[in-house]
Amino acid sequence: MLPEIVIIGAGNVATHLAHAFQNAGCHIAQVYSRSLDHASRLASELKDSQPIDDLSLLTKEADLYLISVADAAVATIAEAMPKVKGIVAHTSGSVPLAALTPASDRTAVLYPLQTFTRDAVVDIANVPFFTEASDAKTLEDIDSFARRLSDKVYHADSDKRKTLHIAGVLSCNFVNYLWDCTAQVLAADGYDFSVVEPLVRATLDKAVAIGPRAAQTGPAMRCDAEVMRQHMERLDPDKARIYCELSNEIMKTHKLDCKL
Amino acid sequence: MLPEIVIIGAGNVATHLAHAFQNAGCHIAQVYSRSLDHASRLASELKDSQPIDDLSLLTKEADLYLISVADAAVATIAEAMPKVKGIVAHTSGSVPLAALTPASDRTAVLYPLQTFTRDAVVDIANVPFFTEASDAKTLEDIDSFARRLSDKVYHADSDKRKTLHIAGVLSCNFVNYLWDCTAQVLAADGYDFSVVEPLVRATLDKAVAIGPRAAQTGPAMRCDAEVMRQHMERLDPDKARIYCELSNEIMKTHKLDCKL
Repeated sequence: MLPEIVIIGAGNVATHLAHAFQNAGCHIAQVYSRSLDHASRLASELKDSQPIDDLSLLTKEADLYLISVADAAVATIAEAMPKVKGIVAHTSGSVPLAALTPASDRTAVLYPLQTFTRDAVVDIANVPFFTEASDAKTLEDIDSFARRLSDKVYHADSDKRKTLHIAGVLSCNFVNYLWDCTAQVLAADGYDFSVVEPLVRATLDKAVAIGPRAAQTGPAMRCDAEVMRQHMERLDPDKARIYCELSNEIMKTHKLDCKL
Repeated sequence: MLPEIVIIGAGNVATHLAHAFQNAGCHIAQVYSRSLDHASRLASELKDSQPIDDLSLLTKEADLYLISVADAAVATIAEAMPKVKGIVAHTSGSVPLAALTPASDRTAVLYPLQTFTRDAVVDIANVPFFTEASDAKTLEDIDSFARRLSDKVYHADSDKRKTLHIAGVLSCNFVNYLWDCTAQVLAADGYDFSVVEPLVRATLDKAVAIGPRAAQTGPAMRCDAEVMRQHMERLDPDKARIYCELSNEIMKTHKLDCKL
């Protein structure tokens, strides 16, 4: 018998996970959204799936109820839905497991560390999933759901999910800001951001292969104060300050005896 | 008749470019290195190529003499080699064109914006090349050499190469430092840097697709001061300061009415 899943939510994460679970041999029995249109759109993409916009219509028979909605709405859904016997799980990095307690005695988190865009193809097998559960048996079950999608299944309680969030801010949000600075600097000379794309990809490949500590290069690693000063002179004051701070941190991290 | 190229240098860049030019239908007539062993190693990988360790043995007949050595050695080579009729070009981002003047009346720069590691495969067709030359005809010729390797050929004088260098520091060196911070934060909770790799790749894809300005997300974009303060509390003082600075710059860049 196929595992029965109810998807609560019809946004990007809900859509990607619904398809991924169906492809992994599960039956998405129902799709709930406040908007019946949204529920119907997703349900119509799936096999034999019922769209609903009323939580009282939730089937009692599903093995997994996956709440994939905005962080702030998770607790509200868990309070509003009828209590069920199956596992109730959310997919959020920042909502505590306890928010689900009203909905089931068996609660879990299934947090994919990935950004999902509606039309962008995601290689789900490559996405790391972080799980947490109310008890050992539920953890075993949610892990086995996660492993249907990906080989990369890790455990993370609320505290460790916070670490992952910080990691995401540092490695993606702040990095994207530096790419924005790069794009501005390049645009002033008529170049597009895409000219550095191959270099950035090679840098990431190297950081993954040998670790970012060993992969560090650049003027700061050579204590090349003359080059760094020239660079700062060409940047606006805000960016020059960031340049100075980051260069000093690199020299400090690598215990180099120099400072700007 | 195949274009005749002499490769001066036998390091990573020289090796990758020698193979790429041979694959693109050129004949690498000679490989020079101070070390005959190094010259021989590279020459033996090529078709009908002579290894030399004495600049006085340079053929006078080559169309292009490509100097691909450490930045500091480019001028020394150009002074030590016999003056030739062909184009003498270097591959450095930071050496001025004028350093080549003693070696030929036709000088050029062929600067690949990529990092080359000996054994890592590089998709040369995807590498942006930046050219500069002593005169219009030489520029045309070096561009046509560059286009044998890649569709991405741009012009850059010394000043614009400096811009590209700054772009590389911001988009790669500083970004790698943030990945190093990420790796440290993750390691404290037992996770490897690779758990964020799919997220970072998706972030880069999005930045390339829609531009990093439009791609910016994260707590700073939501002015979520509570989350940002929680994150800073968990970081060591140096990283917390960087977190604060970068968050403030993101909020300023996007003209959000908030500040940490």
